[in-house]
Amino acid sequence: CEAELPGSANDSVSGPTINIFGYIQPQYDYFFTDGEQANTFRFKRARIGVSGKVLNKFSYYFMLETSPFIGSSGDAYLMDAFITYEADNWAKISLGSFKQPFSLDVTTPCHSLPTIERSIVADQLVAPQRDFGVGIWGGNKFNRLNYAVALMNGRGLGVKDDNVKKDIIGRVTYKVIRNLSIGASFRYGYPIPNNNDDDRTSFGGEFAFEFGKLLLQGEYIYDEGAYFAGAAGGCGSTPIALGEEREGAYILAAYDVTEKFQPVVKYEYFDPDVNIKDNLGYSERMTVGFNYFVNNKVRFQINYLANIETVASVNNDALLTQVQVKF
Amino acid sequence: CEAELPGSANDSVSGPTINIFGYIQPQYDYFFTDGEQANTFRFKRARIGVSGKVLNKFSYYFMLETSPFIGSSGDAYLMDAFITYEADNWAKISLGSFKQPFSLDVTTPCHSLPTIERSIVADQLVAPQRDFGVGIWGGNKFNRLNYAVALMNGRGLGVKDDNVKKDIIGRVTYKVIRNLSIGASFRYGYPIPNNNDDDRTSFGGEFAFEFGKLLLQGEYIYDEGAYFAGAAGGCGSTPIALGEEREGAYILAAYDVTEKFQPVVKYEYFDPDVNIKDNLGYSERMTVGFNYFVNNKVRFQINYLANIETVASVNNDALLTQVQVKF
Amino acid sequence: CEAELPGSANDSVSGPTINIFGYIQPQYDYFFTDGEQANTFRFKRARIGVSGKVLNKFSYYFMLETSPFIGSSGDAYLMDAFITYEADNWAKISLGSFKQPFSLDVTTPCHSLPTIERSIVADQLVAPQRDFGVGIWGGNKFNRLNYAVALMNGRGLGVKDDNVKKDIIGRVTYKVIRNLSIGASFRYGYPIPNNNDDDRTSFGGEFAFEFGKLLLQGEYIYDEGAYFAGAAGGCGSTPIALGEEREGAYILAAYDVTEKFQPVVKYEYFDPDVNIKDNLGYSERMTVGFNYFVNNKVRFQINYLANIETVASVNNDALLTQVQVKF
Repeated sequence: CEAELPGSANDSVSGPTINIFGYIQPQYDYFFTDGEQANTFRFKRARIGVSGKVLNKFSYYFMLETSPFIGSSGDAYLMDAFITYEADNWAKISLGSFKQPFSLDVTTPCHSLPTIERSIVADQLVAPQRDFGVGIWGGNKFNRLNYAVALMNGRGLGVKDDNVKKDIIGRVTYKVIRNLSIGASFRYGYPIPNNNDDDRTSFGGEFAFEFGKLLLQGEYIYDEGAYFAGAAGGCGSTPIALGEEREGAYILAAYDVTEKFQPVVKYEYFDPDVNIKDNLGYSERMTVGFNYFVNNKVRFQINYLANIETVASVNNDALLTQVQVKF
Repeated sequence: CEAELPGSANDSVSGPTINIFGYIQPQYDYFFTDGEQANTFRFKRARIGVSGKVLNKFSYYFMLETSPFIGSSGDAYLMDAFITYEADNWAKISLGSFKQPFSLDVTTPCHSLPTIERSIVADQLVAPQRDFGVGIWGGNKFNRLNYAVALMNGRGLGVKDDNVKKDIIGRVTYKVIRNLSIGASFRYGYPIPNNNDDDRTSFGGEFAFEFGKLLLQGEYIYDEGAYFAGAAGGCGSTPIALGEEREGAYILAAYDVTEKFQPVVKYEYFDPDVNIKDNLGYSERMTVGFNYFVNNKVRFQINYLANIETVASVNNDALLTQVQVKF
Repeated sequence: CEAELPGSANDSVSGPTINIFGYIQPQYDYFFTDGEQANTFRFKRARIGVSGKVLNKFSYYFMLETSPFIGSSGDAYLMDAFITYEADNWAKISLGSFKQPFSLDVTTPCHSLPTIERSIVADQLVAPQRDFGVGIWGGNKFNRLNYAVALMNGRGLGVKDDNVKKDIIGRVTYKVIRNLSIGASFRYGYPIPNNNDDDRTSFGGEFAFEFGKLLLQGEYIYDEGAYFAGAAGGCGSTPIALGEEREGAYILAAYDVTEKFQPVVKYEYFDPDVNIKDNLGYSERMTVGFNYFVNNKVRFQINYLANIETVASVNNDALLTQVQVKF
């Protein structure tokens, strides 16, 4: 139940199984704006699903998102659902709906992110983040090399592909040394409905370094060409208008002060149009906060988001408070 | 799985658990109107969820409403979902979505109501009935005193708070003698979207008396100030236009003729505007019917609802027939 | 969990039980049209539910459809949900939502259909396919005679009945010899909202013959009178405009080459208006394909659908590829 991506399916179980899993993330958010300051109780995610093996090499994963703040209508809907045939550690083939295998930030399970929000660049440029398709995964956490390649609609969940072309997405990670992993992602596709000509190309580079109690990780994503604002990016994120070329990056540090208490700091930037100087949409964000793990099922997360506008400053910082219980 | 309110969570379990629970209420309704008389098979509620403990003091509750006749779209949606930290019998703290702790009628679990419909006053004035927030509960069924206080958005499920103020809601019950419990409820909030000035104040008084095989219970609710018709009240109820001050009450008697057969009678009134004489919206209702408990999982409920208009009489009585199975 | 129809509920269990069941059907479809050829990854069905006994004679069934391509909005919704009281093998009474007991094709569980698509005639004329109501079932697979009669809204899922009349639907099957079963279906109802006058009458005839490794089955459905396009027919099918009288039929042959590999061929026609010669809507379809059962939980299904227009030929053949996992 840790796995949200097909390739990381637990492979130690044998015989037909059915596991129920899920998590809820009730949250309280406060926005430091000019004038009256919005603040609300809400949910981030609220997920429930089942997974299991139905035969030695066949497994399934079936998960609903029920948070009213994700998806188009606020009702419960099918999010990740796929069938996996594990021919081999180097060839796990999945068919269904799952996250595009692009970027460390995107492929980290939503209940294991070190900060409440994913990076802006991952939420804005890896869109759709979830999609229908077929993919092949290779490697596990003990291998130096891991890879994933998927052929997907490119249109996201809830709709059929509305052009005749498919998108290809891939990611490779490699452990240079035991505690340093580097990776690269690639995507080429046709994002626009009823359009088989205008293409889009994306690249990503990433690293993750664990040095004792310190975790350092960073990513850079570059993206160019056509795009479609209607393809949903990260969970509940609002799409930003993009130029022909766009990019962004983040670097994150977390430190285990104790087994339970982990302060975290993240700096990131996102440029929706690299060809415009002093672009109003350009943004930087500093996130400071901490994770407190009561145990492996219960986590408190408090994040202060300092949004930095370099062109025209706006008061739009936010304090997010979340409690997560996994089951 | 009996619990719909955080404070009544089962506290005897230890270790990580996951319980599946739910119930369905298929129904046949017949309306004694003038002209052609509408009648329909339908569902009242159809709920499924999981609950459990993830650590000694942490528990979770996660429940979907799937009846097409509750909620805005008819699809399945997240209803009650919360994380509870039980510091103590006198301090059980919950975060998430749950019913506002106001009124005996509202806080009675939806599968344990003595009549098919809640009282009109509870459905109309305790709106929203469910909300996002944080609350603290104290006491259990063995204590004379029980209390609950919650800070909530005041806007209901499915949406973020759309003003900057929060609502405060509370309820206290006290067992005067072993079989007589009295209680009071209070709510103060800001119900209107984008409005931080117009407030609303509600009071409720209640009693419940068990004398051998006889159950007597009654409630009075008074409510004044601003209101917002878009905040959903009771399950599927249609909001009635309200004046500045409004009130209502009910009294209910049930008698266990046998362990399985329980006739019930309820008289209630609801006045949506106490300042208008001969208000067309004023209504009285007499409900007569019975519960038949096949066992603790299967219940038949038949209710005749005699709606009494004191100003202009309308033929609008109804016969409701429900079968409930809990699992 | 094999049962989608009340009457086929498993009757060997005793004591309170709760079984989780479901299946997912990820699919890849390719359409051989003129010009650019649409093709898409998608889901056919994605269902999850619980069922069980709550008492010796009382059982429940509660199932959600979560496929984004079935239902009005794409979100998860309550599909089949009913309470069954089994007085006797000849009187199993169910209340709730379930498929109308009409036609072999419709009443075959959606995970056990020999071809990916149901017959056009069953999807178009047995509308609504699912409905709220009460029904009585008799017989089991060991009996020569099986019957079902249901009184239903006639309006389909998600809505209350919007006229005052109910529909009556019934089906009888009889095993002439051990391997040859014949059956007849009947429906009489008032399909149009707010209309208690215009009626609709449907008849169906069917046979199923198992001769060693060969399965032969066929059906004919005739339907006349009023209809309402808003009542959903088969899973995700698009309603075709109908004349006063309409009919259709199919014949299907499947052969178990091995225990796992089963080629299948189906011929069908559908005439939406039998009173018009050379009707543009008249269609014939030849389906050829096979089922490959990895085991009883995992099935591959590949179907080529040759759509034959006798009046004006159109390139609209399709290749459907499905993997199904049941849990």
